[in-house]
Amino acid sequence: MKSTMQDVPLTVASILRHVATNHAARQVITYGGNEPARTTTYGSLEERCGQLANALRRAGVGDDDRVATLLWNNQEHLEAYAAVPAMGAVLHTLNLRLSASQLQFIANHAEDRVIITDSSLVPLLAPVLPGLSTVRVVFVAGDGEVSALEGNGVDIIRYEDALAAESPVFPWTDPDERSAAGMCYTSGTTGDPKGVVYSHRSVFLHSMAACTGNALAVEEGDRVLPVVPMFHASAWGLPYASLMAGADLLMPDRYLQAAPLAHMIQTHRPTKAGAVPTIWSDLLQYGVSHPEVDLSSISLVACGGAPVPQSLIEGFADRFGVQIIQAWGMTETSPLAAVSRPPAGVAPESAMSYRKRQGRAICGVEMRLTDEAGMPVPRDDKSVGELEVKGPWITGAYYRLDEDSDKFRDGWLRTGDVGHISPDGYLTLTDRSKDVIKSGGEWISSVELENTIMGHPQVAEAAVIAIPHDRWQETALAVVVRAHDSDVTADQLREWFLANCPDEIPRWWIPQHWAFVDQVPRTSVGKFDKKVLRAQHADGNFVVVPN
Amino acid sequence: MKSTMQDVPLTVASILRHVATNHAARQVITYGGNEPARTTTYGSLEERCGQLANALRRAGVGDDDRVATLLWNNQEHLEAYAAVPAMGAVLHTLNLRLSASQLQFIANHAEDRVIITDSSLVPLLAPVLPGLSTVRVVFVAGDGEVSALEGNGVDIIRYEDALAAESPVFPWTDPDERSAAGMCYTSGTTGDPKGVVYSHRSVFLHSMAACTGNALAVEEGDRVLPVVPMFHASAWGLPYASLMAGADLLMPDRYLQAAPLAHMIQTHRPTKAGAVPTIWSDLLQYGVSHPEVDLSSISLVACGGAPVPQSLIEGFADRFGVQIIQAWGMTETSPLAAVSRPPAGVAPESAMSYRKRQGRAICGVEMRLTDEAGMPVPRDDKSVGELEVKGPWITGAYYRLDEDSDKFRDGWLRTGDVGHISPDGYLTLTDRSKDVIKSGGEWISSVELENTIMGHPQVAEAAVIAIPHDRWQETALAVVVRAHDSDVTADQLREWFLANCPDEIPRWWIPQHWAFVDQVPRTSVGKFDKKVLRAQHADGNFVVVPN
Repeated sequence: MKSTMQDVPLTVASILRHVATNHAARQVITYGGNEPARTTTYGSLEERCGQLANALRRAGVGDDDRVATLLWNNQEHLEAYAAVPAMGAVLHTLNLRLSASQLQFIANHAEDRVIITDSSLVPLLAPVLPGLSTVRVVFVAGDGEVSALEGNGVDIIRYEDALAAESPVFPWTDPDERSAAGMCYTSGTTGDPKGVVYSHRSVFLHSMAACTGNALAVEEGDRVLPVVPMFHASAWGLPYASLMAGADLLMPDRYLQAAPLAHMIQTHRPTKAGAVPTIWSDLLQYGVSHPEVDLSSISLVACGGAPVPQSLIEGFADRFGVQIIQAWGMTETSPLAAVSRPPAGVAPESAMSYRKRQGRAICGVEMRLTDEAGMPVPRDDKSVGELEVKGPWITGAYYRLDEDSDKFRDGWLRTGDVGHISPDGYLTLTDRSKDVIKSGGEWISSVELENTIMGHPQVAEAAVIAIPHDRWQETALAVVVRAHDSDVTADQLREWFLANCPDEIPRWWIPQHWAFVDQVPRTSVGKFDKKVLRAQHADGNFVVVPN
Repeated sequence: MKSTMQDVPLTVASILRHVATNHAARQVITYGGNEPARTTTYGSLEERCGQLANALRRAGVGDDDRVATLLWNNQEHLEAYAAVPAMGAVLHTLNLRLSASQLQFIANHAEDRVIITDSSLVPLLAPVLPGLSTVRVVFVAGDGEVSALEGNGVDIIRYEDALAAESPVFPWTDPDERSAAGMCYTSGTTGDPKGVVYSHRSVFLHSMAACTGNALAVEEGDRVLPVVPMFHASAWGLPYASLMAGADLLMPDRYLQAAPLAHMIQTHRPTKAGAVPTIWSDLLQYGVSHPEVDLSSISLVACGGAPVPQSLIEGFADRFGVQIIQAWGMTETSPLAAVSRPPAGVAPESAMSYRKRQGRAICGVEMRLTDEAGMPVPRDDKSVGELEVKGPWITGAYYRLDEDSDKFRDGWLRTGDVGHISPDGYLTLTDRSKDVIKSGGEWISSVELENTIMGHPQVAEAAVIAIPHDRWQETALAVVVRAHDSDVTADQLREWFLANCPDEIPRWWIPQHWAFVDQVPRTSVGKFDKKVLRAQHADGNFVVVPN
């Protein structure tokens, strides 16, 4: 039996119309470091989006053509976020931190037609541009030098000149909601990057989910600070969710270090912010040594992209009085899939046992665990399995890649993450499946070991990897970056661990092998690169101290 | 270009699975008046839903078959809300306040196969049942007498007996999201009732919208009290939104009068509640004479279904310290379409000028005004037009009614409401289009006059209608119900109005004609029935006092 409901598609254009019609006076502020901030309103932004769409149309962009961005988190990037899908084209966010060869692979694989960049990023784009086979036009925001881009048979146009020449009126389009709105490539540590194509439907639903009370509860009264880059899985949906809610957006541009971030927060007083643990960890350390730092405007700090150490959550609460909420997702999941708000009514002393988990599925997302044979694993908070997820904003394939059958099972995405789920639905991830440590037939969670070790006051970072072991097949090696000026030893760390071992960690997990390094290698998205660590260990690069 | 997203439908089953998996311990409490409250959890509720679905299957209910409810707001009604659509059948909520002939028309038009009712409502159903041509089975909750239903060739089965015989496991179904999930008939004052058929998609999206921060922000920590009946446009979506959020539900059952409502609120401490203005108005009057009444648990009172007098909003804030948020919608709009939260950052002294409006469109809903020729009317807060709405949870037709072309225009629903919209998107409704007063070529807003008159301390209710006038074609007649013990006169009211005339009301609007009655006739959904009032005036039933 058919319903009588209107058949209205969920589109990015409808989000743009909504914010311009209902929240026109709310602001987008781009932080300027030593320069004054740039401010616009959603009313003006919609007109600039119209100019951008007309300029892109003039540059030959038609329906479904890919328009890439190589940009910081700023107003121009937001304009591309809104205008490109709303005109019927596809937004492709390029990751600033990729190598030139990765950027080239991705832009060619996506067949990008236009790139929008910033003059501060010309040195990054210039060596890549000659190898891009489909790009015809580059728009450059900012006033800096652009000559390094010239001579490649590509039109180089100043962004503001392009906009100034156009009408602010554009007939925004509401296509089939399952058509492409944007794309993003995962930057895994193995093989070529793989593309995920978001739909208008997935963007709309994911944004609405982010605005719900159990997720990030974005509302008009918020001022949202996405520190997480807009080229990382849509900055966790914060830009689109803010447009949908009419919340002010505070854009950090290139100022991601602790000092300017602290200044930005004190000056512009965001209410909600999102970033990976490293950023918050840096800010916490900065705040400890700078007593004037005040983050009290923030009611919610979303943290994800990597497991959040308990010490960071506690440090933020103690030093700033600010709660960190852990969220879990990946490029393939748009990314918001789970949020770690403790259950309603939980006793304060039990809250941390929830906060340190990856969270509970938000409505629209289903999670399950499977064992190595693909059979379901019980949600008893003990049984470990690979996390699989399902939902309307979760990818079911990779772009132009037929041979990815091991990433999907019966319509579910296999995340490659391993962990357990409690009876009340809270997910705890213990490892990447490729990073698991299997010792004497039992799993050791590198993540729980790392979180504990990073709670030591003289440890800046710790990564735990599997190394071969004669008797137990594998055992754990803790690779530690000491805090500044510390000379803590492996013996001291192990003793401390024994004395502070959390209930959920069996004592036999505590590493027997330790190594100290100056820094832990990271992937392009800032995660520990354990493949590199294992290779470094195999090559004999570490001095390993067995207790 | 197609996206790579999973093609996962938005369904009621996914809401039910979500709440049972992630919020199993949260509660559904059915108030019992002098009896103890009945409490269950969402975990148990899902199992009872499984039993209900199996019982309905055994009673012959197949895909798309209509299952009607004739129930108060209680646990059984919630079970039907969840189980019927999640099993693939269609929930049809019957309005307790309709006449026997209307109920018969509706149940036959919808071809209801099963009715779920309560033994306290047997006297209502018994005279209707013999005329129902498609109903085969009636489930009766409660312990009361059912013999009056017998002898009609219809199986009469005790609800609890039916559930007890069944397995709690049911293979919930995720159909095409555009298929029917529920239906509700509008109870207009003219013509036969018209059916609206909600889809799984519309229920899911509407619930998610209700959970967003700019709408009702329902979250797990809430205890939600839907006083508005579940047979009125899904109780404004509060039951489904609470399931989606895992919020506790407090069900008032049949106890809708001020005294038990006050007791219920003090005992069970809801955080959010929704009801029509009459209910809140009664509660306010009760609270004034009963100083012990404490509503302080409530953070948000949603009010709609009729314009909310400013005096009620002020009275609630003064007496209880509770903010009333006005929301606008209708059966045809699921119903949430607009919510009157003042804009972020507005000065407290300006907030009331927003609170007394019907509100701003929530994301997903678009609003426009058209004039009598169907041309767009500017959003300047002055120009008046008919409100038209569009969106994925707004009806585009009526069930099995082809000849309703005057209710729709280019894919938009014509609401029959007349008003203006401000540049920042706030809707103010001034009349039903069929109730407008056109005097000397200008529109007079009956709603604004009523709201002002109802601010007089000696006025209990006031309805303003058009009556013929020799010179101005039409003029306004104020029909007033005096407060208890009052003998206020038309002269006094008019003088008071002149002295207290709000800026936005031109003085020439102030009624010259007044009548006093014991009560204002109401429609089955509790709105002023102005058609009856006009007829009563035409029949000379009123003593009209011209000033």
